[in-house]
Amino acid sequence: MRLSQLFARTLREDPAEAEAPSHKLLLRGAFVRKLMAGVYTTMPLGLRTIRKIETIVREEMDAAGAQELRMPITVPAEPWQQTGRWDAYGDELFRLRDRHGRDMLLGPTLEEVVTPLVATEFPSYKDLPVNVYQIEWKYRDELRPRYGLLRGREFYMKDAYSFDRDAACLAESYRIMYEAYARVFDRCGLNYVVVEADPGTIGGGINHEFMALADVGEDLFVRCENGDYSADTEAATPRVSDVLLSGERGPLTEVETPGAATIALVAAALRVEPSQTLKTMMFKSAQGTVAVLVPGDREVNERKLSRLYFPVPIVKFEEADFAAGGFMKGFVGPQGLPDGVTVLADHSVLAGKDWVTGANRADAHVTGANVDRDFRVDRYEDLVEIREGDRCPNDGGELHIGPSIVVGHIFQLGTKYSEPMGATFLDEDGTAKFYEMGCYGIGLTRIMAAAVEQRHDEHGIVWPKAIAPFQVAVILANQDVPEVTAHAERIYAELLAQGIEAVLDDRDERAGAKFADADLIGYPVQAVVGKRGVQAGTVDLKLRATGERTTAPLDGATDAVRALLVSAP
Amino acid sequence: MRLSQLFARTLREDPAEAEAPSHKLLLRGAFVRKLMAGVYTTMPLGLRTIRKIETIVREEMDAAGAQELRMPITVPAEPWQQTGRWDAYGDELFRLRDRHGRDMLLGPTLEEVVTPLVATEFPSYKDLPVNVYQIEWKYRDELRPRYGLLRGREFYMKDAYSFDRDAACLAESYRIMYEAYARVFDRCGLNYVVVEADPGTIGGGINHEFMALADVGEDLFVRCENGDYSADTEAATPRVSDVLLSGERGPLTEVETPGAATIALVAAALRVEPSQTLKTMMFKSAQGTVAVLVPGDREVNERKLSRLYFPVPIVKFEEADFAAGGFMKGFVGPQGLPDGVTVLADHSVLAGKDWVTGANRADAHVTGANVDRDFRVDRYEDLVEIREGDRCPNDGGELHIGPSIVVGHIFQLGTKYSEPMGATFLDEDGTAKFYEMGCYGIGLTRIMAAAVEQRHDEHGIVWPKAIAPFQVAVILANQDVPEVTAHAERIYAELLAQGIEAVLDDRDERAGAKFADADLIGYPVQAVVGKRGVQAGTVDLKLRATGERTTAPLDGATDAVRALLVSAP
Repeated sequence: MRLSQLFARTLREDPAEAEAPSHKLLLRGAFVRKLMAGVYTTMPLGLRTIRKIETIVREEMDAAGAQELRMPITVPAEPWQQTGRWDAYGDELFRLRDRHGRDMLLGPTLEEVVTPLVATEFPSYKDLPVNVYQIEWKYRDELRPRYGLLRGREFYMKDAYSFDRDAACLAESYRIMYEAYARVFDRCGLNYVVVEADPGTIGGGINHEFMALADVGEDLFVRCENGDYSADTEAATPRVSDVLLSGERGPLTEVETPGAATIALVAAALRVEPSQTLKTMMFKSAQGTVAVLVPGDREVNERKLSRLYFPVPIVKFEEADFAAGGFMKGFVGPQGLPDGVTVLADHSVLAGKDWVTGANRADAHVTGANVDRDFRVDRYEDLVEIREGDRCPNDGGELHIGPSIVVGHIFQLGTKYSEPMGATFLDEDGTAKFYEMGCYGIGLTRIMAAAVEQRHDEHGIVWPKAIAPFQVAVILANQDVPEVTAHAERIYAELLAQGIEAVLDDRDERAGAKFADADLIGYPVQAVVGKRGVQAGTVDLKLRATGERTTAPLDGATDAVRALLVSAP
Repeated sequence: MRLSQLFARTLREDPAEAEAPSHKLLLRGAFVRKLMAGVYTTMPLGLRTIRKIETIVREEMDAAGAQELRMPITVPAEPWQQTGRWDAYGDELFRLRDRHGRDMLLGPTLEEVVTPLVATEFPSYKDLPVNVYQIEWKYRDELRPRYGLLRGREFYMKDAYSFDRDAACLAESYRIMYEAYARVFDRCGLNYVVVEADPGTIGGGINHEFMALADVGEDLFVRCENGDYSADTEAATPRVSDVLLSGERGPLTEVETPGAATIALVAAALRVEPSQTLKTMMFKSAQGTVAVLVPGDREVNERKLSRLYFPVPIVKFEEADFAAGGFMKGFVGPQGLPDGVTVLADHSVLAGKDWVTGANRADAHVTGANVDRDFRVDRYEDLVEIREGDRCPNDGGELHIGPSIVVGHIFQLGTKYSEPMGATFLDEDGTAKFYEMGCYGIGLTRIMAAAVEQRHDEHGIVWPKAIAPFQVAVILANQDVPEVTAHAERIYAELLAQGIEAVLDDRDERAGAKFADADLIGYPVQAVVGKRGVQAGTVDLKLRATGERTTAPLDGATDAVRALLVSAP
């Protein structure tokens, strides 16, 4: 491609609306253009990168035995009403009506289409397992589309759906996809972690997220410094010291703490660390009142608590609940809680002693509260929000929390969709059984943006060569000099003849502008053909990833470019 | 691909809802499955064929210098309101609102998106010409979707848009696309004609349709028996005899024709051919009353008439107009029409004499009416509907009318979109000018269906090899015999190793069912590996296009398949 012809111009300035680096750079480099909030036109350069990602995804899906098909984007409402997602999706679903008044939607994922399709085509256990996928645009009417391609309303996604006879076969289909996903992200050059994800409260199916590390990421995850553990923050479980504190226990003593109804105030009033205080959080469920104990410097993770009680909802005390139950808000302590209250404590409570906690009357606390001696704990559970510096449950290494971008998410759905849709196969024993399903998503436009988030510098994008729109830019630095032009044209033609994806920057621009654009667009290798070089019989090569510059002889330029490209990340 | 694994099963019976052969066969062969009216899931086999068509289209577009990008499917309403298409499109437009109440639509074509995009990126005459295209699903809420993929509500289309400095440059861009289109349809193996299409009343731009011949086609076109002329029926102009009828003219005589207010009745009453009568059709426009004369056996083509008056609308007389103007409905003749009436006659009127026509009073006609002597004609024009047997305007050959499927349509739009959208470029002289635009569409799903319409027999589809989902079916006829299986597996593996797209029919099915499915799905070459053949050291080959069967030695089977494939159409 000659850049003089390439449709779309780079932008000199950062677009005002863009915050995230990938959003800025993909706009500036003319990879995408905004049509409306969360909806972008993919320009020729962007489309080349998307196609490369698409090819990698397709190759790995095919190699994993998945079969490609293509489902419609416009989908009838009825099957969505069957599964309940028509209502559950709320405002995020793009809905429309056809001319006959029939309700339709634009698909965000397509379990409702693929499930009856498989049930019709593959109704026997002999047909299973089967895994089908598509790569198609998906729609979600995000409340606040942002960060360009990272949270768009129209996004390009690979969605796969596996159908199995039983849970063991599903686990095997899942394993195959897990491994295929790892290969996809490896080949795309992403720095990512796979985390056990929060199974949510939908029934606890196993699921994993593939998270690309990125400063702008909206999804937090936890990772051990030694690399042997990772999880999303909702699922992460810190290791708890199993050494009980030794030494004397102090006496349980009441102290006056006027107005100190928060941990910070009581710690200040009594000159102790917040970690020395014990927080007693009150919850209620249909099964009764629950007190949750955590050290004063930690927060209760309510999703973890909810999972313990699922499917019974459990919620925090409201103002009125304290008075109704005879609890003194801000000064509750675990000593002397009524028998009817279930007392749950985080594992970390077991490793503390001489706690400062509420005295169960206004403006007073106790010091020297000790478990078992002074208060009862019915059960120890993992109940705290993970935080930076917590210990890895595997090896005790330090846990770090970082932002990331979810680029893939795989689920063992089980019969979540096959049951409400009545999708059964005939098993070997002659009985009809619900398919055990898995679903597997990869965000292709997100991969593109995540790669830019991970690989850019102050000059522009540094594409991994596997997904760069072009591999090499031949920069014609002095196009007014015929000999320089001739050499640049020759090198460009030789690269194309060797099957190397090259551009020739033959635009009527200053050399400086061409260098800046080459850095911005992020070709892995740049070859500069200029007047001085040609006089000296050389071209200047630059590896974008490292900035390293070398020279090569003019007549061996093509080979030198090829060699440099091999070394590029 | 092993057919035992292939997702989707062929159907033994014709689906009840399918009328057109392509609809039946694409369903039976498991190329597509219906999701709702006019909306289909593309199954793995169908997707392979679509991808092949897509590759051909992409290669030819790229070779023609067009650049691929990808525009969104969900589009904001505002630019459509600017061009007037938001209203003009009526019920065919799929409309929706986002969560903030903003009007949006699903794009049928995207002039409203691409025009401002080009104006932003390429604002100078130096940037032109430019031609951009995309291959993406399009949406049109057809009142009556039918014939499967031929008239769907979701269809896969290549749409290209060219932008030029002036009309001459547009004509050149148009020519390049015209030629690229011919190469696309040639490569897809379609039997098609290119016709001058009705420019419509939108401003009279040049446009051509690429029409694939097919019995079920809804689009009629006209073609000379000698192949030197073709047009759609709205644009076709028959040759008119330039020989004036010689001989005596009879006298103008009034005859009583009670109740004979139609051509059929008057011809019967006076025992003349309808072609001997002269029909006088009355129209009105803001410019006055118009009488249109055509022979009694022909129909006025109102679109041709409209084009003569464009942009002033011209419509047929209503009941009240006859009385108001003093015309006797059913008995109007051109003799003695008031001076204020413009008299237009089809060219064919010039070549007739002694017309039977209305006497301008109830229940009476005249015979022996002759042009100039008895009535005036202000202008001769092409005004008749074309019909079977008309003469070619080029060589006088016989014209035939046939059904077809429009697979491509190219337009010189001029400034139809750039003007209302205010899309200008800065020309060399420093003035802002509107882009001269062209637009170019190819229906990819339609090509797939049209190819099936053209190439099928009672057994199934006969794919042209360029777009067959697979090239070769290796049919394992006796899979209970290990030696037969071993040979089939070997041949299948050898074909794959040679880069030939083969399937192995290893399904647990009778050989007869496998043969039937191979014919149905339409692989260009079948290689049958069976017990008898293996004993004799041969395989049976079949060329699907001709049904011709040959045998090849077992150990040279792969080479023989390859050679046969080369010969396949």
